[in-house]
Amino acid sequence: MVDILHRVGIKSSLNDTYQALATREGLAAWWTTNTQGESKVGGVLQFRFGAGGFDMKVLELDPGKRVLWQVVEGPEEWIGTKVGFDLEQDGDFTIVLFKHQGWKEPVEFMHHCSTKWAVFLMSLKSLVETGKGAPDPNDVKIDNWNCGTTSDDLGASPHDRSWHGGRGHPRFGRMSP
Amino acid sequence: MVDILHRVGIKSSLNDTYQALATREGLAAWWTTNTQGESKVGGVLQFRFGAGGFDMKVLELDPGKRVLWQVVEGPEEWIGTKVGFDLEQDGDFTIVLFKHQGWKEPVEFMHHCSTKWAVFLMSLKSLVETGKGAPDPNDVKIDNWNCGTTSDDLGASPHDRSWHGGRGHPRFGRMSP
Repeated sequence: MVDILHRVGIKSSLNDTYQALATREGLAAWWTTNTQGESKVGGVLQFRFGAGGFDMKVLELDPGKRVLWQVVEGPEEWIGTKVGFDLEQDGDFTIVLFKHQGWKEPVEFMHHCSTKWAVFLMSLKSLVETGKGAPDPNDVKIDNWNCGTTSDDLGASPHDRSWHGGRGHPRFGRMSP
Repeated sequence: MVDILHRVGIKSSLNDTYQALATREGLAAWWTTNTQGESKVGGVLQFRFGAGGFDMKVLELDPGKRVLWQVVEGPEEWIGTKVGFDLEQDGDFTIVLFKHQGWKEPVEFMHHCSTKWAVFLMSLKSLVETGKGAPDPNDVKIDNWNCGTTSDDLGASPHDRSWHGGRGHPRFGRMSP
């Protein structure tokens, strides 16, 4: 098992950062504008990027401390993995310790997702500090797997895989209604 | 052993990206402006951030394919770890697969370094694509461990540790002349 780890510090109260992680409106403002579902323990959140995306079961919502999800639908490599955000105050900063845990293998798609998570966490930081994040489809592009258009992302070429699709399942994007 | 992994895609030739990784001038333009030493196999490169930094022994320089270093001086957690960049062409993009391998434990400092590497790899991408990177001291700040000034970075408080220092060695920055 291998994990993606990150740390960002946000000049904010614990509660302001927590709200950006624990509410649908917050998540839609830094990760993907197309965020649906209910952010409550036992509920499922649907994050969509173009036509594809991830479904996350909400495992923990501990105000000001922790948000934890488990992936129940999405790219094969993501199914069953857990995505968590632990918060603590350190002076003027809320520290976010991020973990995407339980990858079976350190595949190339995991390298991509690691960089992409960092970019989205910087979007979270920007949202909370300035009121403006950079959620999909206006996210910062990192490589040829997220070219930014749905048609590119879901192209037939295995090189057109995107954030929402991993090697071997270029048609993942069509799972959604 | 745990690793930091990243993937960026750069619209460039293999050689242009390789030059940014294999030459002192290239490295100084995206990682830290204070880069000294010789980029040759068996040589040592000195990367400084404020007064602290890392010494890297150059293990491999394979034109258009790979750059590999080993940390020989720096924060305790970094000593002996390896930092590698593998390159491959994919259409218009040079893909950089980045690995910082051999961390003993997934400490909080590793979370910080993972995010910080992503930010610096985006600086590399920007440098090669546009001619302008964001190396230290003009790097994008991610948290309270790199506030951007030497006095902050080397403060007595354990919370003032920076990119060049890890938990438990706040005075690491003073190793340099």
